[in-house]
Amino acid sequence: ETLKDALRDDTILVSVMTANNELGCLQPISEIGAILRERGILFHTDAVQAFGKIPIDAAALKADLISMSAHKIYGPKGVGALYIARGTQIGPFIAGGSQERGLRAGTENVAGIVGFAKAAELAAAEMTENAKKITALSEKLRRGLEDRLDGCSFHQPEKGGIPGLLSVSLPGAEAESALVLLDMAGIAVSAGSACESGAVESSHVLKAIGLSETEARSTIRISLGRENTEEEIDRLCEEISRVTKRLQALRAHRF
Amino acid sequence: ETLKDALRDDTILVSVMTANNELGCLQPISEIGAILRERGILFHTDAVQAFGKIPIDAAALKADLISMSAHKIYGPKGVGALYIARGTQIGPFIAGGSQERGLRAGTENVAGIVGFAKAAELAAAEMTENAKKITALSEKLRRGLEDRLDGCSFHQPEKGGIPGLLSVSLPGAEAESALVLLDMAGIAVSAGSACESGAVESSHVLKAIGLSETEARSTIRISLGRENTEEEIDRLCEEISRVTKRLQALRAHRF
Repeated sequence: ETLKDALRDDTILVSVMTANNELGCLQPISEIGAILRERGILFHTDAVQAFGKIPIDAAALKADLISMSAHKIYGPKGVGALYIARGTQIGPFIAGGSQERGLRAGTENVAGIVGFAKAAELAAAEMTENAKKITALSEKLRRGLEDRLDGCSFHQPEKGGIPGLLSVSLPGAEAESALVLLDMAGIAVSAGSACESGAVESSHVLKAIGLSETEARSTIRISLGRENTEEEIDRLCEEISRVTKRLQALRAHRF
Repeated sequence: ETLKDALRDDTILVSVMTANNELGCLQPISEIGAILRERGILFHTDAVQAFGKIPIDAAALKADLISMSAHKIYGPKGVGALYIARGTQIGPFIAGGSQERGLRAGTENVAGIVGFAKAAELAAAEMTENAKKITALSEKLRRGLEDRLDGCSFHQPEKGGIPGLLSVSLPGAEAESALVLLDMAGIAVSAGSACESGAVESSHVLKAIGLSETEARSTIRISLGRENTEEEIDRLCEEISRVTKRLQALRAHRF
């Protein structure tokens, strides 16, 4: 109903992420697609976070345009793809030459394209196996953090969503500081907040799901991959717990 | 004077190739740059054909914007660079992200960029040596064709221009047919004419320098590279001569 309210008579295109990049939760793409198709509005979905991790059926999603990217599925950086449903009218992204059917002029990044294709092939072949493995690691991580950290909270449903994405608030710790300490321990995680040109603003996504400013600022995002191991999850739990307690102690000392 | 006549009060940008892609001849870029700078008109030069082959001094050229491409200097396909003179105001090519100082949003093609940088480094280090070698091969090729083919004509000055580019009319032969026969002999050359979507049109460049339709249609473009050898030039002369005579004979037979 919110979507229907937002549509205007002059709406020609709607774009919705397939999976949210901070939470990994899936949007109701096929329902949105059905509403838009009925009204003749073009529908684009950014599937960069989902492609190669969960099955994507373009027809079932009822999307006219679907974006994907290679570097999210272990392919080369700097190459992506746009699915264009048959019959969709689209102008050139880069005009001037006849490459890529006139839609993107310029000599093609051949090595990147071939690498992307191979990465997609591998992602598709190993999707079920990887999802199973990564989901098990995620559950282990979640339990490990719950056991070690009183008051930590997770910001996605226990089931569903993109495998391996965990958004967690560390009680009494600033995410930005936790990132620095974890980085020193050789662990790369992200903050829930976007950091643009030096100014740290807390995530609009976390606010939208009802988190307070304090909770949003204490949220880190952990992305697990197909090469992570159970031992790494144990160490990750230990380090996050250690770092959080250190930051809690610092704060207690300061006030 | 032709340039000054073409400039209007509302001209804000002029773009001229550094070296013509069909003939390899150099345009008077620094003179053009001086005229435009005096009038406060932005000046872009497409240096794709020249970069890495002849020295390019951005300050001397008086160009505000200079384009380059990796694949023309043995670097990877699908990556290029734009030189932007300090103080030039320019909008984003791709808007949306903060990558490349906000001028080109999206995850960078890291492997391509690194490969381009290495190719440029090598091209600069070996420029004098390669130019000397390739110029000698070009001269050998020109003499070899003159010796073997009566009435062949060359469409660039004997000295100057991009080393290794030779545009030559084959008397009494269609360039497109010559291309096919040379390809069968394992030799890759281009036609002087641009071939878009199947329709063969003779080159506007060749017409502009005064060639007749017949001459333009009989013109092939040969590009030599740093790995070509004297033996290959001998074989190239032989094959071009053989192919031209075969096409001349076919034509004589047909009429």
